[in-house]
Amino acid sequence: MDEEKKGTGKKLNRRDFLKTTGGVAVAGVAAGGLFAAPRKAFGADMPKKWDEEADVVIIGSGFAGLAAAIEAKQAGATVAVLEKMPVHGGNSIINGGVFAVAGSPKQEAEGIQDSPDLLLEDMMKAGLYMNHPELARMIAEKSREAAEWTESLGVEYKERVTHLGGHTVPRSYSTSNGSGSAIVNKQYDKLKNMGVKIRTRTYVSAIIQDKDGRVVGVKIREGYKFPEEGSGKEKYLKAKKGLVLASGGFSRDIYFRTLQDPKLTEDVDSTNQPGATGEVLMEALRVGSTPVQISWIQLGPWTSPDEKGMGIGYVFNAMGGFVYGVMVDPKTGKRFINELANRKIRADAIIRTGHPAVCVADSEGVKRVPVLDKTLEKGVVKKFDTIEALAAAYDIPVKELKETISNMNTYIKQGKDEEFGRPMQTDSKPIQSPPYYACRAWPKVHHTMGGIQINKEAQVIGLDRKPIPGLYAAGEIAGGVHGAVRLGSCAVLDCIVFGRIAGKNVSA
Amino acid sequence: MDEEKKGTGKKLNRRDFLKTTGGVAVAGVAAGGLFAAPRKAFGADMPKKWDEEADVVIIGSGFAGLAAAIEAKQAGATVAVLEKMPVHGGNSIINGGVFAVAGSPKQEAEGIQDSPDLLLEDMMKAGLYMNHPELARMIAEKSREAAEWTESLGVEYKERVTHLGGHTVPRSYSTSNGSGSAIVNKQYDKLKNMGVKIRTRTYVSAIIQDKDGRVVGVKIREGYKFPEEGSGKEKYLKAKKGLVLASGGFSRDIYFRTLQDPKLTEDVDSTNQPGATGEVLMEALRVGSTPVQISWIQLGPWTSPDEKGMGIGYVFNAMGGFVYGVMVDPKTGKRFINELANRKIRADAIIRTGHPAVCVADSEGVKRVPVLDKTLEKGVVKKFDTIEALAAAYDIPVKELKETISNMNTYIKQGKDEEFGRPMQTDSKPIQSPPYYACRAWPKVHHTMGGIQINKEAQVIGLDRKPIPGLYAAGEIAGGVHGAVRLGSCAVLDCIVFGRIAGKNVSA
Repeated sequence: MDEEKKGTGKKLNRRDFLKTTGGVAVAGVAAGGLFAAPRKAFGADMPKKWDEEADVVIIGSGFAGLAAAIEAKQAGATVAVLEKMPVHGGNSIINGGVFAVAGSPKQEAEGIQDSPDLLLEDMMKAGLYMNHPELARMIAEKSREAAEWTESLGVEYKERVTHLGGHTVPRSYSTSNGSGSAIVNKQYDKLKNMGVKIRTRTYVSAIIQDKDGRVVGVKIREGYKFPEEGSGKEKYLKAKKGLVLASGGFSRDIYFRTLQDPKLTEDVDSTNQPGATGEVLMEALRVGSTPVQISWIQLGPWTSPDEKGMGIGYVFNAMGGFVYGVMVDPKTGKRFINELANRKIRADAIIRTGHPAVCVADSEGVKRVPVLDKTLEKGVVKKFDTIEALAAAYDIPVKELKETISNMNTYIKQGKDEEFGRPMQTDSKPIQSPPYYACRAWPKVHHTMGGIQINKEAQVIGLDRKPIPGLYAAGEIAGGVHGAVRLGSCAVLDCIVFGRIAGKNVSA
Repeated sequence: MDEEKKGTGKKLNRRDFLKTTGGVAVAGVAAGGLFAAPRKAFGADMPKKWDEEADVVIIGSGFAGLAAAIEAKQAGATVAVLEKMPVHGGNSIINGGVFAVAGSPKQEAEGIQDSPDLLLEDMMKAGLYMNHPELARMIAEKSREAAEWTESLGVEYKERVTHLGGHTVPRSYSTSNGSGSAIVNKQYDKLKNMGVKIRTRTYVSAIIQDKDGRVVGVKIREGYKFPEEGSGKEKYLKAKKGLVLASGGFSRDIYFRTLQDPKLTEDVDSTNQPGATGEVLMEALRVGSTPVQISWIQLGPWTSPDEKGMGIGYVFNAMGGFVYGVMVDPKTGKRFINELANRKIRADAIIRTGHPAVCVADSEGVKRVPVLDKTLEKGVVKKFDTIEALAAAYDIPVKELKETISNMNTYIKQGKDEEFGRPMQTDSKPIQSPPYYACRAWPKVHHTMGGIQINKEAQVIGLDRKPIPGLYAAGEIAGGVHGAVRLGSCAVLDCIVFGRIAGKNVSA
């Protein structure tokens, strides 16, 4: 209980939380969110005169927005891509660059049997069968095509696929630099070659509809300085063919996320970039988009409490410790969960212990961790010559830790985890080759599964059950694809597939 | 697996569901909901002329709407109560009439220690700590006052309090007739005496705002014939002081509930009256109300698959079998869950077995079941001279069932359930006095926890984080009070407390 209070994840602690809510202090729990200041006026009427126009206006410059822009431009449309932050890329540029592909050439090369149906099953299982089936199926079936599309833009992936939590088989592509930036940058280059510039520092303050409800443009603030609400110069931008919402999720919108889950106050950290706030989602709801599953908010289980935001320690945990090592409760030295269960199961299990877990791997287990040197340099992953030294550093009972590792080594040899059913890797080796590495794990807000309703054509569906004319959405702002819990490495996939669909349809 | 296919709950079966979603048939799962026909036009502009006016317009005539109407009328306002169905009372009139009261005179008479803080803790625990704390605290603190208010209207409750699932102590009042109608009828009488008539068959097709966003009235259809969307005569009704939304939940809106949880197709039954559809919620969202936790939909664990809707078998299960008897899996003859756990835990546990459970009680255990004769007459509860005959009728292994009962009798004697931690009643007697009674249990959609955001003043909060002028809400249409899972007998409480607050504030 004491240790994690030093970390950033200190407040997401069930026991502390129970204490806080049990007595008179309940109202204070949500002080960070529920009682936030009102927004300034939002929404806008049709302007007398538009300052500018484009066939297609796209809000957001992450995977989905850029995919939509490329398709729209290729279809012959003039395209304006709006990004409120000073740099393009949104949350995608700090994404881990893992991409679920079912039935890929890389899997074939490794002799791994897979299919879109199996990926769909994994997604539905993680999503507690709350996924909108037709949307989930769409991305499962188009995963190979989507990956090949990124390769056609010049994106390079590592040779081997990774086995991420919740997936039945190893299937996730990893970009060569271990980051989503490898994809974003190629999308950006493509757009640049086609003459499309990303308009950074451009904040959208309103979606504008005509009297029949058709979305016809946006009110923007150019030269916006995040997060100053009134900064920048007001302009009206007409969207002649339509508007694509690709503005991401609301993991950093403390007010709105606290409304949906009052536990997620300002004291809970997030992996997302600071701009992952929800104003475009609020505008989308204001113009009549149907809200879907907005209270399902995902915590990532692999982040470290010893650094802010997403950080880099998660790479060690997700690609090393969880796959080739063990995750233990430092109080007991024992494992407590399948390290490759879905994100919710793992995050909930860590939170239940009341303190950060510790992931351990040996020199064999870190071979596929791309940024190991950086994590050591930053001090978020630590290196030890012996298990004894590692145990001492994290205050783990050494006898129990050794027993845990010995048990795991048996499971590795027999190819079966008898305790928690973690899928064993064919290239796993017993954990016995020093040096040993360790990193703490504590959940942070990572992805907002819910959002606005879309159909298979990426059209936004209104409260009257009809598509809102001129309005499309793709990526994290859209709800339903992932149901209650998003499976790892399916975000890139979702964004690329529905971003492209939106870009094609809006310009048709 | 086979047995329940005859029942109405047949499709909410995880294994069947897995089968359906595993293969190519995924899109079909949601056919009942996701692809429903569009609504006819909704929303409306300000009329040139209002046909009628009242100070306060209230949509809905259940607990919340009638409580609001009484308060508004007592404050001197003219009041119009609109009800789309041919009879008043909404879902409240078929409600079970149980009312959580913390620290009541009835508890004092039985020597039961309780407090609003303890009720709040129970609510938060059931709600997975997703309750908006200030709303949950409000109803916990006003529970005694709310019950006394109903008593002042002439509502009579049974002498003793009931121990419902998820409550730490027995605290729930039960109306003398075992139904919410006992409360609704007294509210109705009160309004009649004050000269307020319920305008039945009056459908609200639009909430109307002025140019500043203030809610100023509604568009209605008089003489509406549920569920014919275009029936009735169109009129505009001005709300001079404001509008109270007390229209209930959306348990019977298959389209919208399927969007939030695609498993809840038309094949899953509901306990609610047919009119529990979501059109007023859709209008509330259209005018900019903030959606809160809309994907948390509660299944009731006590309903019988051998009758439609809420039925009456649940009374035996909730007040007899769960409290004084045992619930067993008929395949094993064994208990599988604390019969007084919260609704979600129980419903999930029953669903996981793949078939309806069987609740068993003896002649002592049914003493507090108010409508036992009716349930026997209907055939939903069955009576047997021996455990052997009961076991044979439900195809339960008799040896195991006897052992289960014998174990429970030990727990009853020692006042402690060693297997599942069910709270034991002080007046429990060993299950050994024939005749024996049994009823099957299978979950049905019961309550929609989410809805629109309100504050402690029952004002509806808009997407701009400010109250929408002139708009109030109370009861099931409002989200946040109950978090993820509503605790039993807190719905009446919620409706009375926030209905009264809304009625006072709208007329102030």
